[in-house]
Amino acid sequence: MRMYDLIMKKRNGGKLAKEEIYFMVDGYTRGEIPDYQMSAMMMAIYFVGMDEEETLHLTMAMAESGEMLDLSQIQGVKVDKHSTGGVGDKTSLALTPMVAACGVKIAKMSGRGLGHTGGTIDKLESFKGFSTEISTDQFIENVNKIGIAIMGQTRELAPADKKLYALRDVTATVDNMSLIASSIMSKKLAAGADAIVLDVKTGSGAFMKKRADAFALAQEMVRLGRNAGRNTMAVVSDMDQPLGNAIGNILEVKEAIATLKGQGPADFTELCLSLGSLMLIAGGVAKDEQEGRDKLLKVIEDGSALSKLAEFVKAQGGDDSPVYDSELFEQAAISEAIVSPDYGYVQKIVCDEAGIASLILGGGRETKESVIDLTVGIILKKKVGDEVEPGDELAVLYANDPDKLKAAKERLQNAYHIGKQKPAKSSVIIGVL
Amino acid sequence: MRMYDLIMKKRNGGKLAKEEIYFMVDGYTRGEIPDYQMSAMMMAIYFVGMDEEETLHLTMAMAESGEMLDLSQIQGVKVDKHSTGGVGDKTSLALTPMVAACGVKIAKMSGRGLGHTGGTIDKLESFKGFSTEISTDQFIENVNKIGIAIMGQTRELAPADKKLYALRDVTATVDNMSLIASSIMSKKLAAGADAIVLDVKTGSGAFMKKRADAFALAQEMVRLGRNAGRNTMAVVSDMDQPLGNAIGNILEVKEAIATLKGQGPADFTELCLSLGSLMLIAGGVAKDEQEGRDKLLKVIEDGSALSKLAEFVKAQGGDDSPVYDSELFEQAAISEAIVSPDYGYVQKIVCDEAGIASLILGGGRETKESVIDLTVGIILKKKVGDEVEPGDELAVLYANDPDKLKAAKERLQNAYHIGKQKPAKSSVIIGVL
Repeated sequence: MRMYDLIMKKRNGGKLAKEEIYFMVDGYTRGEIPDYQMSAMMMAIYFVGMDEEETLHLTMAMAESGEMLDLSQIQGVKVDKHSTGGVGDKTSLALTPMVAACGVKIAKMSGRGLGHTGGTIDKLESFKGFSTEISTDQFIENVNKIGIAIMGQTRELAPADKKLYALRDVTATVDNMSLIASSIMSKKLAAGADAIVLDVKTGSGAFMKKRADAFALAQEMVRLGRNAGRNTMAVVSDMDQPLGNAIGNILEVKEAIATLKGQGPADFTELCLSLGSLMLIAGGVAKDEQEGRDKLLKVIEDGSALSKLAEFVKAQGGDDSPVYDSELFEQAAISEAIVSPDYGYVQKIVCDEAGIASLILGGGRETKESVIDLTVGIILKKKVGDEVEPGDELAVLYANDPDKLKAAKERLQNAYHIGKQKPAKSSVIIGVL
Repeated sequence: MRMYDLIMKKRNGGKLAKEEIYFMVDGYTRGEIPDYQMSAMMMAIYFVGMDEEETLHLTMAMAESGEMLDLSQIQGVKVDKHSTGGVGDKTSLALTPMVAACGVKIAKMSGRGLGHTGGTIDKLESFKGFSTEISTDQFIENVNKIGIAIMGQTRELAPADKKLYALRDVTATVDNMSLIASSIMSKKLAAGADAIVLDVKTGSGAFMKKRADAFALAQEMVRLGRNAGRNTMAVVSDMDQPLGNAIGNILEVKEAIATLKGQGPADFTELCLSLGSLMLIAGGVAKDEQEGRDKLLKVIEDGSALSKLAEFVKAQGGDDSPVYDSELFEQAAISEAIVSPDYGYVQKIVCDEAGIASLILGGGRETKESVIDLTVGIILKKKVGDEVEPGDELAVLYANDPDKLKAAKERLQNAYHIGKQKPAKSSVIIGVL
């Protein structure tokens, strides 16, 4: 078999067979197929596409290119959750303790963030002493004992995907539904969970700007997961404005804690309930969404979701006292508000601009080597559809550096669009698959 | 400017600006743009295409990527000729002395062959002592004095094309009209001639299997040449069966000599007259094709074309005596014929198979390092449309190795298709642009 012939076949509109896709992925992972042939193939796929079978084979070949985690020592159904990401997305922090408190096992691999704010691991390090560098034995023991553990991605899952994504990123071959779906799902399949709940974002702050694209991606991933034998469900949710009110690491942790107490922002709470109920169904502890929501609301009300977070933080070496008293978290030195210049309604909050404002404050990583300031960030006081008067606070910025604050304020002010017309309020949940 | 953005622009159907194309070609030639980005771009061009302006910019950027030969010290109009190649294509050997004998200057860079038979240089080395390793001064002096000189391609003309073609060759991005045309024309433009006559082959033995594609390529190249300020014309000619009767280096030289004596095969003679008359028009010594043909027939008849070949061979150190006595050429040790198994007509001679038979005999190069046996080859006795009886000789093979002969015979026998129906004889000249 020759890679040249496979490129030619795809270029001419052909369908790649299973063994051809494995040959290509394995050869590329081992460095036997050069980048220049793979990038030509990716561009041919961009134009010609791949069908359902080809996409499944590509996903499986990439998943199997490295270690496939074996979580069989964990009793019960293991449910994983994945978000395509956005600004203010602290969902894992609140959702996983809620779901674990309802009796579904959470065994999660997480990464550090690159971009607007830190990743889940960065945020969890807001709890002093918390570590995701635990052994596999410890990881499995924690999941079995308390129902939840999060491990840093020490092992390389789906190395083929990592290499291929880096290539696609520099050759303008990212935007293809089959390639995007197989990239995400190969990692999820390698991570070993029995069931996967996906949160596909859409809107100005999401990778999928258009709803139709988000639904198509969600459908593709659900189909892939199911064809790979994993119970897979998806929610398409709004990312046309930041999720919840908090952007920035400790601020987001505080908001997650508030949500676990039943005091979170409406949109964020709703997203947790929606995703959570699907996870409970997947985990076999709820028969439908209504029962799932009821159970989740109950663990919020009776405090068991909050104590599950504390239990989890403590089990991985963290100081759990801020779970019960958010004032114990470190705080930024300066805070300043931006205000509305006019009467009217918030028309939109340009998501990416709000994210960049947080990045400027020091809350995210511009490069892999950047050091994150966990204390800085933004609390939105007004969201899309809210009525404002001149001088009303739109948002408060938390900073440790006056120059950065100045730059971030300007950026955030520009992210807010105020107008006379009252815009339609859109629900955070756009669809469930 | 970033290559990534250019790939994205082309992928999305955009048109590349002149400075973008120069940035890309220059960066790639210098190794600053990696192969994997260029191959993605080539695949995007394969699908999206390039318009007339883009193709011209690409051609000029590649032509200017190395030295542009300056032939201004040669008096008069310099005419170059290029063939897209095929089996038995010894055109340069007969055509250039004919044209030079009519007073048009031939200053040609030639290469060695890879494939069926040798290139023009290999064939000229059939004359003992002949060398194309002459200095530029000698080259120019010879052209001025005797009207013809051929130089080995010692300098790297259009290095961008060389690098890009090698990449396209392994990434299934060769088959695009703009890319093929710019590749050929960039080298021709760099080679410095004032006028260019192109011989675009079509049929089973040609790169362009379909006539429509051959015409499209011819048109594209003529347009490119004219837009670059060079008088450019083209002939589309048949390569559905080998050209003339001889395949193999010395055998082809002998056939060229016979043609210069007016004793060549009809198809080959006709092609030389057609291409030659265009060269005479381009060189300003004939006002139309008829006058061109008349002049060419005259230099054949009066022997001046043949003595021009002798003069040229001698001027570059070769022994010119075989020009007047072909028996002086070295000869292969063995010869054997293949015969017709049946009554009927030659339906077709699969061109590539006949070429491979010659290659098997040792007449061509499989790799750049192969040593060519100049004496071996094939003389076709019957061509498409000829009537045959069982036992009639179809072709004679000349060999120095019995095992190779056996393999080549089998191959050549399979190349001949005999059938009852008398096929339509097609003309060697399919069109003139």
